Amino acid sequence: MHPWLLKLLDAYRPAAQRLALIESLPPPSPAALPQGPRGRRSIRFLLASHQEVPPMNAPSPVVFFHAPRSRSSVTRAMLEEIGASYDMVALNLKTDEQRTPEYLVINPMGKVPAIRHEDVLITEQPAILTYLAELYPEKDLAPAMGDPLRGAYLRWMVFYGSCFEPAIMDFSQQREPVPPMQCGYGDYDSVMRVLAAQLQQGPWLLGGRFSAADVLWGGALDFGLMFKLVPDWPVFRDYVERVQARPAIRRAFALDEALAAEQIRDLDEALAA
Amino acid sequence: MHPWLLKLLDAYRPAAQRLALIESLPPPSPAALPQGPRGRRSIRFLLASHQEVPPMNAPSPVVFFHAPRSRSSVTRAMLEEIGASYDMVALNLKTDEQRTPEYLVINPMGKVPAIRHEDVLITEQPAILTYLAELYPEKDLAPAMGDPLRGAYLRWMVFYGSCFEPAIMDFSQQREPVPPMQCGYGDYDSVMRVLAAQLQQGPWLLGGRFSAADVLWGGALDFGLMFKLVPDWPVFRDYVERVQARPAIRRAFALDEALAAEQIRDLDEALAA
Repeated sequence: MHPWLLKLLDAYRPAAQRLALIESLPPPSPAALPQGPRGRRSIRFLLASHQEVPPMNAPSPVVFFHAPRSRSSVTRAMLEEIGASYDMVALNLKTDEQRTPEYLVINPMGKVPAIRHEDVLITEQPAILTYLAELYPEKDLAPAMGDPLRGAYLRWMVFYGSCFEPAIMDFSQQREPVPPMQCGYGDYDSVMRVLAAQLQQGPWLLGGRFSAADVLWGGALDFGLMFKLVPDWPVFRDYVERVQARPAIRRAFALDEALAAEQIRDLDEALAA
Repeated sequence: MHPWLLKLLDAYRPAAQRLALIESLPPPSPAALPQGPRGRRSIRFLLASHQEVPPMNAPSPVVFFHAPRSRSSVTRAMLEEIGASYDMVALNLKTDEQRTPEYLVINPMGKVPAIRHEDVLITEQPAILTYLAELYPEKDLAPAMGDPLRGAYLRWMVFYGSCFEPAIMDFSQQREPVPPMQCGYGDYDSVMRVLAAQLQQGPWLLGGRFSAADVLWGGALDFGLMFKLVPDWPVFRDYVERVQARPAIRRAFALDEALAAEQIRDLDEALAA
């Protein structure tokens, strides 16, 4: 091996000790993490149906696993944007319902959002939004293959989870920057500046065209500004305001606030009892 | 605000101090990060063309920004899988060519891979692979919209950057786990076990069907095993072996090794001079 490769290998060595413990456990069997039944009956989560009478020829309903005031509010905004028919399973994060055995059967990562459509489970917000945009092509929320904006659309959908989320996570934890050679996303400042430069070509992330990427990024930057994890630049603030002014997104927000209030009321009642 | 939200807000507060510094700088102007010229003439990077005589009606060539023995080797494997016609700009990571001003015009994150196709720049490996699979639909490397495997395909393409990469990064840095509520991907062990359970349904990530997701995950797990960042489970080892046995991937690997050797020779000569 070349000394350069050996050096890189060395940099990773200390963490390898933790691996010994994990490797000493038996590897997971296929049965350990089943795709699972729908599980809607076995859990006591709040369940609500939206658009009970879908139009003719509409796609079959999506089951949406959601917690209000969480990352999954973005998926709810998307469902409202496309006018989808969906059954919602609402989890209460304050009582850790997303880590109950019942929900871990649905998503072993213990995370919302997740959706199930025609017995396929989909997790990871950018994947969910991409899927939903494709499910309702007439809403025109994703540049199709062959569209000159297709490449940029895919790039920014992935950039969210691959760069933005890890960058704000490391930032929030005040971690020392990792050597750029090892760090998958590069560095926090570059992430923010690249994103700002893209948005300055606005009004939307892809310029003149509103897309599912804006539902994603409008929510991500709203969250980032609220928790002071992104710079308070006008370009970010104005963009979030534009996204949130859309009727479907306002509707999703209002529904979400009502659900959050309901969960808090339930919890307070349970604590008082 | 509800006490629960205030508490979460509080947890993020310390990092906010670093924001003051970033915010005190002027926000980036649109001109600061141009999409950039092709830049092939202005940089002295090694340039090579593959498949100089593409078949009739083939897509126009892709420009591929690459460094051997890096994450971008996965994109090279994908280009070989689809038999794409491409112009390669090879960067030498050992001399930090990916952070030269010339390359930062191409990708401001200072990362490979990047591709440019018909004047659109695409970064982020899962986005690049998704794009390339769509560019050569006759190679059948992506379940199309409407295919029952579409949701799983999107999920696992995004899972790589959103969960796997941040998990192995935190693992390699031996960081204390972040409270799961704040951590976008959950935790390292769950990431590895969910992935192993999926692969046990093999032979490929989507079961019987080979796809661009296997090009991605074959490379990711090969890297992870080499640097001892993922558990040395047979399910991972066997899968990597299966992916690497494909003729196109062996060809990409051989080309990459030759390029790496060439770069090392160039560097040694420059150091000796």
